[in-house]
Order: sequence, then structure tokens, then C-alpha cells
Amino acid sequence: MTRQELLAELARLSDEDLAVALQAGRAREKARQRGTYFLHHFLQERRVEGEDGRAVITIPVSDLVMNPGGMVHGGITALLCDNAMGMASYMEKRRPGVTVEMTVRYHRPGRGDRLVASGEVLSAGALLNSARCEVRDEDGTLVATATGTFYHRQSR
Amino acid sequence: MTRQELLAELARLSDEDLAVALQAGRAREKARQRGTYFLHHFLQERRVEGEDGRAVITIPVSDLVMNPGGMVHGGITALLCDNAMGMASYMEKRRPGVTVEMTVRYHRPGRGDRLVASGEVLSAGALLNSARCEVRDEDGTLVATATGTFYHRQSR
Amino acid sequence: MTRQELLAELARLSDEDLAVALQAGRAREKARQRGTYFLHHFLQERRVEGEDGRAVITIPVSDLVMNPGGMVHGGITALLCDNAMGMASYMEKRRPGVTVEMTVRYHRPGRGDRLVASGEVLSAGALLNSARCEVRDEDGTLVATATGTFYHRQSR
Amino acid sequence: MTRQELLAELARLSDEDLAVALQAGRAREKARQRGTYFLHHFLQERRVEGEDGRAVITIPVSDLVMNPGGMVHGGITALLCDNAMGMASYMEKRRPGVTVEMTVRYHRPGRGDRLVASGEVLSAGALLNSARCEVRDEDGTLVATATGTFYHRQSR
Repeated sequence: MTRQELLAELARLSDEDLAVALQAGRAREKARQRGTYFLHHFLQERRVEGEDGRAVITIPVSDLVMNPGGMVHGGITALLCDNAMGMASYMEKRRPGVTVEMTVRYHRPGRGDRLVASGEVLSAGALLNSARCEVRDEDGTLVATATGTFYHRQSR
Repeated sequence: MTRQELLAELARLSDEDLAVALQAGRAREKARQRGTYFLHHFLQERRVEGEDGRAVITIPVSDLVMNPGGMVHGGITALLCDNAMGMASYMEKRRPGVTVEMTVRYHRPGRGDRLVASGEVLSAGALLNSARCEVRDEDGTLVATATGTFYHRQSR
Repeated sequence: MTRQELLAELARLSDEDLAVALQAGRAREKARQRGTYFLHHFLQERRVEGEDGRAVITIPVSDLVMNPGGMVHGGITALLCDNAMGMASYMEKRRPGVTVEMTVRYHRPGRGDRLVASGEVLSAGALLNSARCEVRDEDGTLVATATGTFYHRQSR
Repeated sequence: MTRQELLAELARLSDEDLAVALQAGRAREKARQRGTYFLHHFLQERRVEGEDGRAVITIPVSDLVMNPGGMVHGGITALLCDNAMGMASYMEKRRPGVTVEMTVRYHRPGRGDRLVASGEVLSAGALLNSARCEVRDEDGTLVATATGTFYHRQSR
């Protein structure tokens, strides 16, 4: 599509859909400019805390992250857990790592205005960290918990 | 923002960012019109198979689903697994269910053109199903595996 | 084997092996007499606490529960976690349940004189409970953690 | 207790309890003599197959491994899964490893004459293997499934 066609198609959208379009376009622009990644900006993740072995991440709850049942999609909750635990593990090791595996447990539907995921390292080895995470809504209701293993290759 | 302001902001984006904006705006429009949900359309999920106790879901791999390391974000892989297993479980029970928990294991970076998630029910009870899932890229490389429990309330 | 043959074979064992033989024979006798089960007595499990949604179980560490590497066998640690979480879940529901699944993470080798497994219910539903467990040695070192799902059929 | 006291106590047991006592005493003797471990002999594990990345282990089902509900204790099933996956991982790496974590899912009660646990490596890395396991009874009924991560330190 040419730029003109793209703009013409956009102009046909409703106001609300247009707002989502702008949110997505800007998220991609930011990711590109800052060398970060799209989903971080599009989901409007905020890192509200981050020290040795701990990290807290929040996202607003909107219809962009809902499943057909009107609650936050379990995959988005899993993404949040992965990010909070992965960042906690990074904060402990201070070098990049990858997720080996994670288990996510869903306790209550994710609803309300925002979700808060608190990750912490449970046990740290030379290469492998175990972490856990709690996801709560803004009332403090426990929405999900997760545990996972993170592998941090030896720095050379 | 007014509609004019939204369009003015959009007009400032690059062509590629504009294309992503349109993809998001249209996904939201479809979700609204069809009573489905945003992420399904935005991630361009395709259900390529679906019979009793089995389901296959694919998504294209693009920079929209990447993590900072340039591979598919583990949370998106988890979302795919949740969807493929949840749909397989629905196909077996023929009534709505929820994810109780899932474990996702990451074997190889998700790269290439698309990911294919194949879910199947391993064991079916009156209310609880166990399912498993394999995620492969288009070359057949095993990217991730998952297992999970799905709860389907008795229909009345 | 006749009783005489059994006793003759036993008489050939060393003193230490004989002590284990007696521990096993008595455990089976107790299980039979009390309608409980063999492993509980043989592993010398002690329930040191047990209230709503919580349970603590200890076992002595001896060569009976070791793996070839000279630390407590991961399967025995898993059994402890299953028991502590299952009992915690029972304490919350006050009706029998079964383990749907559990994840056990091994942090440090299980050594020393005894292991202490502390289980608690994380989230309680009508039929399903989520529980977690920590296993520590007598110095408080975190040996393992576990999470699991327990299903308690409706009482009628 | 002196040897005489041990034998006197043993002589008070019923025939069936005496048989269990002998099984335990002999298992300890074998473990000692062969440098293996007690539970392997006491549970009468048989390795019926074992090649690159695969392993099959069986145990007889007796009241020694039952839980209070008259089915195989979930902890014993977990121990079997740990052994079958751990051995499969060893068969792939050919050097010792440890279990990082495992998830066990219980599908049907373990009953009948014996359980067969079949482990295989799903994905092999330089240091970490992912394995899975199926546990079936002698009729082929799926009793449990498991997945796990195994860490094999670099040999030097």
C-alpha cells in the first residue's frame, strides 16, 4: 500500500479504533528509535521498581489485552510474568539471560484498571536462577502466580 | 484527542509505522464487529485445523512479536500455547473452559516466517483436561513445548 | 518363603541392614493396624503443624532416602511436597482431594539431619486449590520449592 | 538395639510384614555392596531399555508404594518420572546431571501390577536438556506424564 492508501484506510476507522492505531504506530516508532521492542511500548509496560533480584512491572488493562471472556488473556499474563521474573533474574546476575521454562497459575480473572507483576529471584546459581512472580490487580487480588528458570550464560 | 488530532499525529509516522498502525486499527475494528478479541486479529492468528481434542494455530513472525533479543517474545509463545491447548480442550469438551495453569518450555529461539502451535488433549476428565502443545517454526524446528490444565465447568 | 526361611535370611544380614529391615517391617505393621500407609511410617514423617490451609511435614534424612549422589532423592523431595501441599489443601477444604499436577524445583542438595516441608494454600476455589511448598533443611537452607493444583470433589 | 533384640523384635512380626522387612534389609545390603542406592533396590526398579536419549523404568505396584487411597503415591510416581527422565538425559549426555525442576501431571490412579515410565529427551543443549515422561500401567492406561529440565555440568 502507498502512504496515501494507508492514510485513506486509516481515515475510515472509528475514533476509538484510530486511537488504538496511533498507540500501535507510536509504539513501533519508539521501539525503532530506542532499540527496544514493540510489545513493551504497545502494552504500556511500566517498570516501577527494580533492584537486586527483584522487579515490578505494571500494565494498564484495556480491551487490547482481553480474551473473548472479557478478562486479561492468559498469554498476556504469562508475558508479564516472564518479563517480571526475567528482569528480576537480570537484576541479580547483571548479565543477559533467557527463559528456560515457566509455570503460570491462574487464580482469578485479570480485570480492573491495571495489573502489577512482582518478580523475585528465589535461588541463584552460577548459571541458573529460579524466580517467582505474583500478579495482582490494583485492589491487591491475586490474579496469577508463576515460577520459572532463567539461564545466564557465563560472561567472558 | 480529537479525530483531527489523531489523524495529524498518524500522518507524522513513517510508512512502516503507519502500516502497523493500520493493522492495529483494523484488528480492533474486526474484534468489535465480530465480538471476538483484539489480539487474535492483531497477531493474525490462523486456525488451520481443529477437530476433537486437537487444534493448530499459526502466527506470522514479525517485529511486532519480537523481544529485545530479536526472537519471538516468550510471552507470545506462551499465548500461542495457551490458545492451541485451550482450543484443543474446547474441541474435546464442546463447552467453554479456563486455563488452570500451564508450563511452557523454551527450546530454540522462535525465528523465521511463522510459528505453528499444535495442541492436543492428553487426558480428559469430567471437568478437567490435560493438554500439551508443540510450537515449531516453518522448518519444523521445535521452538517450545507446553503442558496445561483446563477446567470446563459442568453445563447445566 | 516360609516363616522359618524368612527369619533365616534375616539372620544373615548385618546389624545395620537388620535395623532397616525392622524399620520396614514395623512400618508395614503400623500401616496395616492403623489403616494408614506404609511410606508414611517407613519415611518417619512427622506432621508438626496443621491448621486451615497450612501444613508442615518433616522427615529424617538417612541413607534410605538418598540418591546415588549422596543427597536426598528428588522423588522423595517431591513426595514430601505432594504430602505437605495435599495436607494444606485438605486443611482448607476439609474433604479429600487428589493432586492434579505439581511442579518441583530443586535449589540445593537435600542433606543434613532432616527436611522440613511447609505447604500452604495460595488460592482456593470451589473445587480446585492452588498450593505452594518450601522444603528446607534444619539450617533453614532452601532445598526445593513446589507448586501444585489439588482437586476436591464436591461432597454430597 | 543389640542384634539379639533386633531379631527378637523381627520374630514378633506377621509373615507378610516379615517379608517386607527382608525386602528392605536386602535392598540396603545390595545398595551398600554395589555402591548404588537403597530406594532403587527396595522399589525393585527394573531398567528395561536404555539408549541414546531414552530410558524405560518399571516398578511393581504393591502396598509399599500406595497412598491412603489405595493407589500409587504421587510422590512415587514423581520419583519414577525423575528417574526415567534423568536416565534418558544421562543417556543423551553421557555425563552425570541433576534435576533442575520437573512438572508431573496425574491422569489416572496408578493401580494394577506394575508401572512403566518411559522417558525421552525432547531437546538437548550444551548444558541443559528438556525431557518428558509417560507413566502407564500394564494395560497401557496413561497414569501420569511429566516434563523436566536436567543440568549436566561441562566435563573438564
